[in-house]
Amino acid sequence: MDTIQSDNYPIFFENSIDELANFVKQGRYSRFFILTDENTAQHCLPLVKSKIEDQDNFDIIEINAGEESKDIDFCIGIWKMLIDFGADRKSLLINLGGGVISDLGGFAASTFKRGIDFVHVPTTLLSQVDASVGGKTGIDIDSIKNIIGTFTQPKAVFIELGFLDTLPAKQILSGLAEMLKHGLIQDANYWNQLKNSDLSKPSAELVHRSVAIKNKITVEDPHEKGIRKALNFGHTIGHAVETYSLINDKDHLSHGEAIAIGMICESYLAHKKTGLPAEELKEITDTLNNLYPRYTIHESSFDTLFEYMKKDKKNQSGNINCTLLTNIGQCNIDNICTEAELCESLLYYINL
Amino acid sequence: MDTIQSDNYPIFFENSIDELANFVKQGRYSRFFILTDENTAQHCLPLVKSKIEDQDNFDIIEINAGEESKDIDFCIGIWKMLIDFGADRKSLLINLGGGVISDLGGFAASTFKRGIDFVHVPTTLLSQVDASVGGKTGIDIDSIKNIIGTFTQPKAVFIELGFLDTLPAKQILSGLAEMLKHGLIQDANYWNQLKNSDLSKPSAELVHRSVAIKNKITVEDPHEKGIRKALNFGHTIGHAVETYSLINDKDHLSHGEAIAIGMICESYLAHKKTGLPAEELKEITDTLNNLYPRYTIHESSFDTLFEYMKKDKKNQSGNINCTLLTNIGQCNIDNICTEAELCESLLYYINL
Repeated sequence: MDTIQSDNYPIFFENSIDELANFVKQGRYSRFFILTDENTAQHCLPLVKSKIEDQDNFDIIEINAGEESKDIDFCIGIWKMLIDFGADRKSLLINLGGGVISDLGGFAASTFKRGIDFVHVPTTLLSQVDASVGGKTGIDIDSIKNIIGTFTQPKAVFIELGFLDTLPAKQILSGLAEMLKHGLIQDANYWNQLKNSDLSKPSAELVHRSVAIKNKITVEDPHEKGIRKALNFGHTIGHAVETYSLINDKDHLSHGEAIAIGMICESYLAHKKTGLPAEELKEITDTLNNLYPRYTIHESSFDTLFEYMKKDKKNQSGNINCTLLTNIGQCNIDNICTEAELCESLLYYINL
Repeated sequence: MDTIQSDNYPIFFENSIDELANFVKQGRYSRFFILTDENTAQHCLPLVKSKIEDQDNFDIIEINAGEESKDIDFCIGIWKMLIDFGADRKSLLINLGGGVISDLGGFAASTFKRGIDFVHVPTTLLSQVDASVGGKTGIDIDSIKNIIGTFTQPKAVFIELGFLDTLPAKQILSGLAEMLKHGLIQDANYWNQLKNSDLSKPSAELVHRSVAIKNKITVEDPHEKGIRKALNFGHTIGHAVETYSLINDKDHLSHGEAIAIGMICESYLAHKKTGLPAEELKEITDTLNNLYPRYTIHESSFDTLFEYMKKDKKNQSGNINCTLLTNIGQCNIDNICTEAELCESLLYYINL
């Protein structure tokens, strides 16, 4: 697997933890901090520690696993620990974990002393193919996802595929939704390849291909002025469903499960508005509906969902903006959707 | 007074509030938010409002005046108000106030939805000659000044000298310290000109010259890798004294009062370490000591002051770094100073 060269930083796929150990040894940093949660502390940190020679200069910052940690209070906790540990501007933060760790750690680092360097060691499929690439950092406020953040690139990304071996199936499915999205918005061949693969454990080649697609888009448009909005396919409705589930369900939807619902609904909108053929809508719907568990949405929650959609970052002048497919493998950004259209698409999902 | 062209943004000095009204009218933004405090709401907001034609699209966010507002809780408050008001990525935040407003507002804007545009309308001498130029944003955590922030440039700065007419003498003195610093680190002629001026109300020409000096340095080195550290002269000790006073004094030192003390102490260090001639040390000491009120520092507080200095952002690998003069008008960055040297310089101030 080739190293992917992103915008001034490498994304490693082979012997990645050895590469991390080399990176640390180069003498560019005065101190090292590893941000981890109780899961990665147990399953991933031992490998990292076993590779690092000089461990005296490392401090561990451990937070609780889960989206609930991705808020400003945990961020303040990280800032205060960096202060207490005496972190200076030449310190490096190593984000060892899933998307919560990379988004939160990236934001904390990008604002600490007006910015210290950080690298990502993504440990979930979702963070490997999505959060670790592209330079978005973010935290939630009042459960509004990524409402606060920066665009700041990591100094390197180390993708260790071995970490996926310990992941539960629900987390594999969560990452898979973003991989399927990469095919749907940009690469019909890749979509077909995914459909015909054993998706219970995506191969290294598939992960590499998803990262390459995401990287190409984000290098071209780092600040999401244009083509990067393609990556938001499924996310206007998906984020709203995810927020709703986070607030209301004890065993809440994963990010990918919510995005799969969003992709079904937004494919329906695409069929209505941007010419996605009926047979392709059916192909997308059947594939996602077979892969992902059904989720019950009541019409009584449409108002709440719509309120969440109105807070989406992509909106302008009060209009709700969606990225919609024109064909499998092609999409169109900045489509204004009305409340009636969005509700209709939710009904399409409900009535499947 | 010529408009100064900074790194992609203009700094207006003439008819500045008219220029702001023009800027607002250009149609680049969907919504406008004015961040203000109770002082600027009373003294400055009426002029701004009188110039703006379409006021329906404006919302006011008012915070308490004072350094205490420059912390994460107020920042969260601003973020939540922006959410509640429905601010989108095409919104503009207008920071109408002193350094607290521009630092806090700049940080809130630079991180809201991963960054919305902002402009500064500085209303104090200090913010006109210092905070509004150069793209530093910041908030305090546990009274550690600017420990969290970003480097983000405003889209424009509107300097209205008329706002200085209502400022109390203490606030004029606060800004003056930064102006004197500009002369000391870079321009001996300007220092002499300042010494021979009526400093109770600095002229437009002097303000313009200070902004030009600060702008030239920050354009050359926006991220403070080198020459920008010159601007930290007086701030290693000055920030520690300021933090100490903020925590311990009811009527605490202004920023400039603390920096004046810092400049005296660091000039003493410069005499000892970087060859500042004795007669120039005396000239600096006498000038600052005559302009600024004396402040009582007890030797028993040296440990606390030293703890604050150790948290300074300029430090590396645990060493305390100072910018020191070599002559009036010239300086040298990255001088490591020991605890003993720093204490000696505080004793120099105490014994004046």
